[in-house]
Amino acid sequence: MAKQHRNGARKTRPTGNGKRQGAKIRQRRSPRAATAKTNTPLSAPRRIYIAGRLYPKIRIPMREVHLMPTPGPSGSIENQPVRIYDTSGPWGDPAFHGKVADGLPPLRKTWILARGDVAPFAGRTHRPEDDGPRRHRLPPGARPKSPGITRKPLRASADHPVTQLWYARQGIITPEMEFVAIRENQGLELLLEELGPDVPRDSLLHQHAPDHPTPNAETPKRITPEFVRDEVARGRAIIPCNINHPELEPMIIGRNFLVKINANIGNSAVTSSIEEEVEKMRWATRWGADTVMDLSTGRDIHSTREWILRNCPVPIGTVPIYQALENAGGKPEELTWEIFRDTLVEQAEQGVDYFTIHAGVLLRFIHLTARRMTGIVSRGGSIMAKWCLAHHRENFLFTHWDDICQIMAAYDVAFSIGDGLRPGSIADANDEAQFAELRAQGELTRRAWDHGVQVMNEGPGHIPLHLIQENMQRQLEWCHEAPFYTLGPLTTDIAPGYDHITSAIGAALIGWYGCALLCYVTPKEHLGLPNRDDVRHGVIAYKIAAHAADLAKGHPGAQYRDNALSKARFEFRWQDQFDLGLDPDTARAFHDATLPHDSAKTAHFCSMCGPQFCSMRITEDLRRFAAENRIDPNVALQSALDQKAQEFRTQGGHIYVDPKAPKLP
Amino acid sequence: MAKQHRNGARKTRPTGNGKRQGAKIRQRRSPRAATAKTNTPLSAPRRIYIAGRLYPKIRIPMREVHLMPTPGPSGSIENQPVRIYDTSGPWGDPAFHGKVADGLPPLRKTWILARGDVAPFAGRTHRPEDDGPRRHRLPPGARPKSPGITRKPLRASADHPVTQLWYARQGIITPEMEFVAIRENQGLELLLEELGPDVPRDSLLHQHAPDHPTPNAETPKRITPEFVRDEVARGRAIIPCNINHPELEPMIIGRNFLVKINANIGNSAVTSSIEEEVEKMRWATRWGADTVMDLSTGRDIHSTREWILRNCPVPIGTVPIYQALENAGGKPEELTWEIFRDTLVEQAEQGVDYFTIHAGVLLRFIHLTARRMTGIVSRGGSIMAKWCLAHHRENFLFTHWDDICQIMAAYDVAFSIGDGLRPGSIADANDEAQFAELRAQGELTRRAWDHGVQVMNEGPGHIPLHLIQENMQRQLEWCHEAPFYTLGPLTTDIAPGYDHITSAIGAALIGWYGCALLCYVTPKEHLGLPNRDDVRHGVIAYKIAAHAADLAKGHPGAQYRDNALSKARFEFRWQDQFDLGLDPDTARAFHDATLPHDSAKTAHFCSMCGPQFCSMRITEDLRRFAAENRIDPNVALQSALDQKAQEFRTQGGHIYVDPKAPKLP
Repeated sequence: MAKQHRNGARKTRPTGNGKRQGAKIRQRRSPRAATAKTNTPLSAPRRIYIAGRLYPKIRIPMREVHLMPTPGPSGSIENQPVRIYDTSGPWGDPAFHGKVADGLPPLRKTWILARGDVAPFAGRTHRPEDDGPRRHRLPPGARPKSPGITRKPLRASADHPVTQLWYARQGIITPEMEFVAIRENQGLELLLEELGPDVPRDSLLHQHAPDHPTPNAETPKRITPEFVRDEVARGRAIIPCNINHPELEPMIIGRNFLVKINANIGNSAVTSSIEEEVEKMRWATRWGADTVMDLSTGRDIHSTREWILRNCPVPIGTVPIYQALENAGGKPEELTWEIFRDTLVEQAEQGVDYFTIHAGVLLRFIHLTARRMTGIVSRGGSIMAKWCLAHHRENFLFTHWDDICQIMAAYDVAFSIGDGLRPGSIADANDEAQFAELRAQGELTRRAWDHGVQVMNEGPGHIPLHLIQENMQRQLEWCHEAPFYTLGPLTTDIAPGYDHITSAIGAALIGWYGCALLCYVTPKEHLGLPNRDDVRHGVIAYKIAAHAADLAKGHPGAQYRDNALSKARFEFRWQDQFDLGLDPDTARAFHDATLPHDSAKTAHFCSMCGPQFCSMRITEDLRRFAAENRIDPNVALQSALDQKAQEFRTQGGHIYVDPKAPKLP
Repeated sequence: MAKQHRNGARKTRPTGNGKRQGAKIRQRRSPRAATAKTNTPLSAPRRIYIAGRLYPKIRIPMREVHLMPTPGPSGSIENQPVRIYDTSGPWGDPAFHGKVADGLPPLRKTWILARGDVAPFAGRTHRPEDDGPRRHRLPPGARPKSPGITRKPLRASADHPVTQLWYARQGIITPEMEFVAIRENQGLELLLEELGPDVPRDSLLHQHAPDHPTPNAETPKRITPEFVRDEVARGRAIIPCNINHPELEPMIIGRNFLVKINANIGNSAVTSSIEEEVEKMRWATRWGADTVMDLSTGRDIHSTREWILRNCPVPIGTVPIYQALENAGGKPEELTWEIFRDTLVEQAEQGVDYFTIHAGVLLRFIHLTARRMTGIVSRGGSIMAKWCLAHHRENFLFTHWDDICQIMAAYDVAFSIGDGLRPGSIADANDEAQFAELRAQGELTRRAWDHGVQVMNEGPGHIPLHLIQENMQRQLEWCHEAPFYTLGPLTTDIAPGYDHITSAIGAALIGWYGCALLCYVTPKEHLGLPNRDDVRHGVIAYKIAAHAADLAKGHPGAQYRDNALSKARFEFRWQDQFDLGLDPDTARAFHDATLPHDSAKTAHFCSMCGPQFCSMRITEDLRRFAAENRIDPNVALQSALDQKAQEFRTQGGHIYVDPKAPKLP
């Protein structure tokens, strides 16, 4: 069935396999501690890189988890390693020793320049007030220095957008597209190919068919660069990647791909510092955040963003109106298009990959929120509503939409069209205000596409289970299948302190229905700013929701990891069970809390039941017995049964586990 | 809109209202500490009791949360108190000072005796080996004394079952039925009735219509004792309440009632003690567990159960085969019907309210598990499978089903027909073995009903999102609408350490589809035995899942609590927000972590955004402005708009919040 186990396979990876040309393997194992640093990888041992085929120089990073062999009566049987999508960037590579002050290497620089359609330019001059008018509150000398990057910003120099959407429409497959295609397959298909035909597509590849009523049946069995290009060209997927954020490792957001998750960070006037925010970013991506939004509203807003961008391997999103408001002295009614435009350019030149812009909060919708239980709960939405009422004019983000699109197209900043009127409570879910704005988002989407700009739409919020599907259906219809990006939704309001759970339930459901990006919610939602531990809990809850959705959508290879972990669990390979999980540190710590000794890591029973009661152990016995005895359960004659019973007892009452033995009928 | 606020309404409840005859109010407030004891109530201030109408002497306990008034421009406006379903029993009543060694008062004793169909008898003699053959391992003197209860056990004395099912079929409404009817309404309807017609059915009562494709549209607007009786008579609901567990406060399990949750406790050969298990039971019910299963397999099994039962206000379930196996020397093949029967009687006389019995694990199904990823993962299922194979005979629980039913009927022990072949991994979900057993459970259900015994059916386990609904549909069809009781299900296997979340997602979904009882999963699932903190996390995750399902099913009054909390959140009534939540201690601690000062409890902004950015504050302004200015957003003339803009600025740019002001069109 598979190769025999070679001694030490766990510690020294089998080498010398000529077929494995694409995979450069590093041999270092990472430290394992519950108090891990953000620049240490999760405990799965290895970082590998897979080379591109269209673009042989690109290297797609993955974690590779090596597994213990399965013990059997005729010797050990090797278990193939499992490759896992890795969002931690160079910080997750034990061989990388860069410093935060220097920023990450500009991975995409050559890809971007090779297209010949961008040029460096002087850029906007950095002004003291970019860090906010209240910056003087900082004690002298307390402001940290910016990372030592002195690149000039890039901007489109040709007479066309420099967006992935534009390239895709021209039929071009960019390096970014091949990168995400290989990344989406999680190395599963490539792994099997490398290992060769002697490794059968065994039971681990078994996956439940996606036989369900969702609009996601179009994912191919294997994701190719061509498929990526076509989905981007149709606007059904986006690859957020500002040309001024070359540190980014490309990823894709679309409902025919893996469901992605976003983690919010950002300081506020009340608390938090630059270093903390950079650490939160590294921490969030270590655990699996696919994108990060910097929602800073406090001091040093420009510098904080610069530090984050230069060190961030995933797309960064922002809500530019927050900074624009600072520049307007904190008064919404003082906001102007000019202040906002200047902020957009500033952030686009820094390298922000997507902007949340609340252009769908129209003057005529605002009164619809007056009867609500919780009015307007989006910060951006309430700022724009206040501006609209103060001036009794239409939202300037709406009236300047074409101007905004032109800026976005020149840097490949993607839109995340905000939902400023999203419901803030179960009571307000799916109301007139919310759906009026969603229709406006659809119109804005189409106009952005006309400018060649990539688009996704933001969604709620707070929705009870039975009203979630309607949100997804209307978004698909009204927004022309642009990717949906929801905050949760929370499925009940009665659990402050646990809204990562109330919302992971809604997130899993809407992900299954077709939502492409899930904005995480931490346990501190509605109560305070998340700390490290809250960020971890939020990210893990959302990795669970996203993966549950991937399983239900039948994403190719999604179930492979579940199967590998279940098999490890059944075979009491504790170490493998930890390593294959989303949070190896916590799983190991929980196990050790009950059975602290090292021997328990290989014990053939769980701490829950003790050796006598372990159902998995009893089942192992059963399996062995059935295999050895070729049981035909349909034999009705008692004499035959008695004979078999006698045999069973004579043999000592222990039963079956050899996977090489023929299966029962 | 509502009565004006009278000073001190929060601390001294309005009294002297003659209509409130049913509610006996206690005035004590409970201490608030993150390290709360199990005999202290959650921080919501009051325990009240509502009297029955058919049975005026019965007193249904509830927590009553008093709320701060809403400040408004024309004075404060009172907010009506919110009543919450309370599972903590007398331990949650600050006026109760009983001791664990004495057990709880026998609440139901008079109800049971008044029926005249039971009699005390000598009962089975307690034998040393009831506490397990390995009990001698305990050091001398280490065994705790049993509670000081010397009641003789009761047993049916008339020629009919003494089950709630039998009474319901006779058309009798028992005190238990009225108790659960009032309890299910959560006091909402009664509260409004008491407060009188001057309290309008305001926006807090707004609830989304249950417009969804689930089989739950039959819940009436108000749950009556007659409805309870009819559902029990049809077998669609059960009230587990052994006549030997008079301490129990009745509750109902059925899909037209509030979704309930079960918490598992129990020692094992490896760890844990009697005191710990009693504490876990009190802890779990303090947080909201509706039933508790004692899954002990270790030493002192009889005494542990005795301590738990005498102190437990909720139904206790067990898996008797665990103790029977101890009595068979730990060898499944040595099990006999006689050993099992003796165990059943022993536990029925102690007062266990429901038994998990794996009678559907039939000899002919066992081979179906051989191809599985994870074989048989149910302990009870694997014990019976091993017995079947060792003897090559049919499962003795199946062949003795009628005998078992007769025992259950004589004490009103309910069946929880086990799912011994449930899937233990995503890979094994919805397979032939699982569904073969489910059909057998249906046959057993019908036969149990013939004996007048109450029945629910157990279900999985591990199921991806898209396969969950099939489980519910088949169970309804094959098991004739008996209540379903599932373990999770877990929706992915890749998150050891977080299976309370992977499974809360599945639990919410299957609860919405019609599952009546959700067995919790703690973060330690698959890894170790849960401690206090794990039990809390498991219970809260499942309260969330159950409530999310109740909202989606449109259970009458379910959304009331969400609405009250959302309103408190919007109005920055922090204390009320904490008190209305599932875990006030944690919510308060999280808030205080960012804004520790007492003044922040009344601050009109959140710690997330700071005062300048608070969307709720901005919305308050908006609302006030719109109300004061009677904005007609359809006015198109710019001159009118300019004028209104000028007015807004002149007035200082602050806006609206008076809920008495007329709503906008």
